Amino acid sequence: MGAIGYYNGKIGALESMTVPMLDRANYFGDGCYEACLVQNGKAFALREHLERFERSLSLLEIEPPCNRDELRAVLDRCVEASNEPSAVLYWQCSRGTAGRKHGFPAPSVRPNLCVMVTPKSIPPFDGTMRLMTTEDNRFSMCHVKTLNLLPNVLANQHAASRGLDGAIFVRNGVVTEGTHSNVSILKGGVLYTHPLDEHILAGVTRKRLLALCDRLGIRVCEEPFLKNALYDADEVLITSSTMHIRSAVEIDGTAVGGGAKELLCRLQSAYRTEFSKETK
Amino acid sequence: MGAIGYYNGKIGALESMTVPMLDRANYFGDGCYEACLVQNGKAFALREHLERFERSLSLLEIEPPCNRDELRAVLDRCVEASNEPSAVLYWQCSRGTAGRKHGFPAPSVRPNLCVMVTPKSIPPFDGTMRLMTTEDNRFSMCHVKTLNLLPNVLANQHAASRGLDGAIFVRNGVVTEGTHSNVSILKGGVLYTHPLDEHILAGVTRKRLLALCDRLGIRVCEEPFLKNALYDADEVLITSSTMHIRSAVEIDGTAVGGGAKELLCRLQSAYRTEFSKETK
Repeated sequence: MGAIGYYNGKIGALESMTVPMLDRANYFGDGCYEACLVQNGKAFALREHLERFERSLSLLEIEPPCNRDELRAVLDRCVEASNEPSAVLYWQCSRGTAGRKHGFPAPSVRPNLCVMVTPKSIPPFDGTMRLMTTEDNRFSMCHVKTLNLLPNVLANQHAASRGLDGAIFVRNGVVTEGTHSNVSILKGGVLYTHPLDEHILAGVTRKRLLALCDRLGIRVCEEPFLKNALYDADEVLITSSTMHIRSAVEIDGTAVGGGAKELLCRLQSAYRTEFSKETK
Repeated sequence: MGAIGYYNGKIGALESMTVPMLDRANYFGDGCYEACLVQNGKAFALREHLERFERSLSLLEIEPPCNRDELRAVLDRCVEASNEPSAVLYWQCSRGTAGRKHGFPAPSVRPNLCVMVTPKSIPPFDGTMRLMTTEDNRFSMCHVKTLNLLPNVLANQHAASRGLDGAIFVRNGVVTEGTHSNVSILKGGVLYTHPLDEHILAGVTRKRLLALCDRLGIRVCEEPFLKNALYDADEVLITSSTMHIRSAVEIDGTAVGGGAKELLCRLQSAYRTEFSKETK
């Protein structure tokens, strides 16, 4: 049936779906979201995404729109309705519908649940990217998956307008994360990645990558690293739920990576196996 | 007729208006806005708001949804339809309606214009506020009036939950602005306020205040000042288009202001005269 939208119990073709003008998502970006890939009707790593969604809601002091089982049922219903071999499953929750006032609305105002299922082929598991770095000018709430994404949008577009695939944020010289991904490097057989704090999102694929490293005997250092380390790395890894584990081949016009191809392949292949197994 | 909503040519009762789920405002906060007071069918300081709106659009690389005269005509039509003695006139523009991808959509995708008129009495011109300070954790695009307002929402609510009227952002010890206002202080007959840069919005009421100071022979220093200066100030002034020029009477539990009542009164009274004259 194609792209599907859902809003507070109503379901239909995505392009025809509407939301109230007074939904606080529309004028404050007052909400949070999740997105993951679906194959054979199965959402990959759904439990991790549901857990993170609950954390985001809690950090924004938004009451969950329903309990986890009910949310799962709604998501299943949307995936079923789309009836696509593979897709992106996206859902967001806003604080509710109310006249525009900064303070939270009355407790009687209920959060709004919005879901979108968009057909998409599963991307290759060994993708490469050409990237640029950009100043990280975002707020200190990057650990919450909020709908306030303008800096990400602009950084991404500035990369796209240069023919690149995305941008990497750098805050005070330190690499934080990508515009919609986490960034790690392999150097001397060790994987380095920014520690979990308010400057990066706790990526589901990042977490899977660290677990895979553990399983494959690759040492992990969750430590901040500088921009220059990107150019010197054996491999630069870009992880996200819709891109899997990709490697950067160019950053800021400089060729990067290629120095730990075998290790990279083992990680990508192990991730592919997980993905296939869990979406069979 | 009450609250009115408008969206790309469609007009109706605000509560019944909808926007497409795929409007980029809904999932990225990818747009900007303006708001001003209306009395007797006349929007106060409209030209300044229209100019700032164009600056915000330009900084976000969003094409104006129409030219200034056309926008004026739409706003007039909405104000007329609401037919209220006084109201808040709010309008926003998003980058358009498209499937969720970070990069800008194709040039054929047109920006969306959304307007809301909400009945509201004109507030008193000598209002006072009880406030708190809070860490300014916002992005470095505060000079653009974007729809990414979550930090403002949260700071405002944290103040409200303490029974206060709002919060003042402090970045590295320096007072930047309020959650939806600019902050200035009077000290020794001089008005101090944060200079225009990426950390504050170029407030229309701030600009009017500076012009009034000039007219009344009050020296203005557009210089950063520290949090402690709030407690020591003769008066702390909070300015916004919907609040006029207010004075703080308490900040962080400490009584403030009251040391330059006559100067404050002259400024408030001069502002009131401007407002009345221009909305007669």
